[in-house]
Amino acid sequence: MTRYHRIAAQDLGRLGALSDGIFAVAMTLLVLELHVPAAQAWHERLLWSDGAVSAEEPVWHALTHVGPQFLICFLGFLTLGMFWIGQQTQLNLLARADRSLTWIHLMFLFGIAMVPFATALLGAFPQSRLALVVYWVDLLYLGLVQLASLRYASRAGLLAETTVPEDLRAIRDRIAIVQVLYAVSVALCPLSTYLSIGLIIALQVNSAVSPQIRPLNRF
Amino acid sequence: MTRYHRIAAQDLGRLGALSDGIFAVAMTLLVLELHVPAAQAWHERLLWSDGAVSAEEPVWHALTHVGPQFLICFLGFLTLGMFWIGQQTQLNLLARADRSLTWIHLMFLFGIAMVPFATALLGAFPQSRLALVVYWVDLLYLGLVQLASLRYASRAGLLAETTVPEDLRAIRDRIAIVQVLYAVSVALCPLSTYLSIGLIIALQVNSAVSPQIRPLNRF
Amino acid sequence: MTRYHRIAAQDLGRLGALSDGIFAVAMTLLVLELHVPAAQAWHERLLWSDGAVSAEEPVWHALTHVGPQFLICFLGFLTLGMFWIGQQTQLNLLARADRSLTWIHLMFLFGIAMVPFATALLGAFPQSRLALVVYWVDLLYLGLVQLASLRYASRAGLLAETTVPEDLRAIRDRIAIVQVLYAVSVALCPLSTYLSIGLIIALQVNSAVSPQIRPLNRF
Amino acid sequence: MTRYHRIAAQDLGRLGALSDGIFAVAMTLLVLELHVPAAQAWHERLLWSDGAVSAEEPVWHALTHVGPQFLICFLGFLTLGMFWIGQQTQLNLLARADRSLTWIHLMFLFGIAMVPFATALLGAFPQSRLALVVYWVDLLYLGLVQLASLRYASRAGLLAETTVPEDLRAIRDRIAIVQVLYAVSVALCPLSTYLSIGLIIALQVNSAVSPQIRPLNRF
Repeated sequence: MTRYHRIAAQDLGRLGALSDGIFAVAMTLLVLELHVPAAQAWHERLLWSDGAVSAEEPVWHALTHVGPQFLICFLGFLTLGMFWIGQQTQLNLLARADRSLTWIHLMFLFGIAMVPFATALLGAFPQSRLALVVYWVDLLYLGLVQLASLRYASRAGLLAETTVPEDLRAIRDRIAIVQVLYAVSVALCPLSTYLSIGLIIALQVNSAVSPQIRPLNRF
Repeated sequence: MTRYHRIAAQDLGRLGALSDGIFAVAMTLLVLELHVPAAQAWHERLLWSDGAVSAEEPVWHALTHVGPQFLICFLGFLTLGMFWIGQQTQLNLLARADRSLTWIHLMFLFGIAMVPFATALLGAFPQSRLALVVYWVDLLYLGLVQLASLRYASRAGLLAETTVPEDLRAIRDRIAIVQVLYAVSVALCPLSTYLSIGLIIALQVNSAVSPQIRPLNRF
Repeated sequence: MTRYHRIAAQDLGRLGALSDGIFAVAMTLLVLELHVPAAQAWHERLLWSDGAVSAEEPVWHALTHVGPQFLICFLGFLTLGMFWIGQQTQLNLLARADRSLTWIHLMFLFGIAMVPFATALLGAFPQSRLALVVYWVDLLYLGLVQLASLRYASRAGLLAETTVPEDLRAIRDRIAIVQVLYAVSVALCPLSTYLSIGLIIALQVNSAVSPQIRPLNRF
Repeated sequence: MTRYHRIAAQDLGRLGALSDGIFAVAMTLLVLELHVPAAQAWHERLLWSDGAVSAEEPVWHALTHVGPQFLICFLGFLTLGMFWIGQQTQLNLLARADRSLTWIHLMFLFGIAMVPFATALLGAFPQSRLALVVYWVDLLYLGLVQLASLRYASRAGLLAETTVPEDLRAIRDRIAIVQVLYAVSVALCPLSTYLSIGLIIALQVNSAVSPQIRPLNRF
């Protein structure tokens, strides 16, 4: 290892700040996808403005367009929220960063930056199995990188002194359970892609709410 | 509660940083909406460039287009500013975060990310009651999530030791007063949507300026 | 003043973080304006792909399009850089924030979020005096809000103990000198808008470089 | 030096925060370029919706479009990641900032904000030597500004006490080696631009992975 590699990218705080920035932009851009139909409606209004069409008509039209995309966009937001909490929880267990850990997290953030693309593809083609598989590949990739980060951090001695092995096992189990449920949901797409999408949303809402009912509180 | 749920998302600082990022992107994107007419004017200039039209003509045209949208965009900015101050004030009363509080705030941030969409819709259709109601539903949702956050934080023991019950009551009252005034403003939309929009802007400007005159300094 | 107004928006750190976010988005979006011609060129390439046109032709075309806009975009970046340094310097003199100071800075940030719009307008119509005046009005507005912030902070007792009156006077003089030079540059636009734009760029480059030559090091 | 110049822009933390914001927006926007084909496909789907075309067809079409751009976008992300680590490492060696250092880094950030434009140009015209040279000029500019920052910081006495000359030399050597390899890769573009692009990607992947094999671990 060269001297540069030893002094490079030690700052856990800046890794967190870059991550927050990328998550924030991705989360806001997700919702920005909804904008396009409003702009289309705007032009339609100009076309209709001479006629007797009520002012509400193009708004209904725009909202109807937005409707299904709104659900997909909510799915993308939940996905980003889950991974943001996961990454934050992992980084909180560390005492410091190094260059390899930083690159692992940059690769994680590349997957995060892909979420708006994968979400927009699924929003445009909610009936396509291929679009669903693209979305799922991104989820799987993000899970694998999270596991790699955990493994590297504990091998390279980056963990804080207060971190106990149970913490690592809890995170690892958590990632595994969620990824298995994602895979099962996607495997049901030959029945209906809407079923798969609905299951993933239900899984993520359950994870956010984490009701005090067994076994729902395990996911 | 599983071990993962106990260690996840404790970091109040990163929640604040993610929020600042989402508010910053949303606030800047609001104003970006104004860009579109400028781009249209650019193309018109190309069409006109052979003629004898003065260089100022298309700029006036672009600005006239932008005029009404500018007001709506200012409204959106004030809305985001008020909610940013509200969230910051609440988070300052807490000693730490947990996973449920973080999810409540992620749901809050989803509503924040919707503000540019709702603002663009209202900017495109300022005469539409439906667009106004969509905007108001977002405001109401944000207020309810703020109340839920306050309630959860005090029940789950996340408050800082220096936080007194009067602080909580002040925030709760504040949210209630503002939401009632929003609802009254929107309820007047059958008279004129411009009246409703004007009242909301006046209410928010008053809140920002908070003049030393009773009862205006209460809102 | 109500209790809410007393506890609201005390956090100087989050005000800085929101500002950094808005400046970062505005600075990056400025450069994003350059993207559009590249996208146009892409479509042209598709049209030409059957012909014998060299691969370099559309790139030259795109770059020629981008050329003048690049200078305007650099102007916008310098403007944002100067105001970012100015705001950072001011906030560093403070010990804490309050609700009114935060609103003053939110109004400042609204002007910052307008810079990409004003820059794009000037980039689209570099020969238009009106577009130049719109740009200048934004600069003037930002300067006035900076002065208001300084005045409010010293009256409301928000200054840090280490801040001496000379610091305040230095900042005030600095804002005044720069604003006078902006106004003089814009006042020359009846001669040529390019002259005005060139003077503003020269003034800002001089401010960034601050050569060790009197009187250039005063601006 | 005026008093303003002495008190301005001392805050290393806010320089880091602005940088993280600009890098975050640039990194996310890079991937946003991929969105456009999905939107095109959306419209094609509407055209085809009456026919018997399977739901998967337009998704394949969109992904095929995106394919080559995905690689270029990954190149851009690696580039931004390398420069982010480089800047973070440099800033960590400093004790404080001053106004000139801040302007040097603002110029660095201008080059960073140009990366999405240069990447989009290369993505649109991967066979164009001119587009490759534009990309390389941005890389070279960023390297030179990094060297200028290092040189200025050590001359102006901004280094932390724990920083030793070996650290500075390690960073300087590192920048030099990487820049020479970039130049060599680009110099091979008369053979094939794809060869040059492939070499730059290989160089950056090697830098991220930094395998424990000599001499690969030196870059």
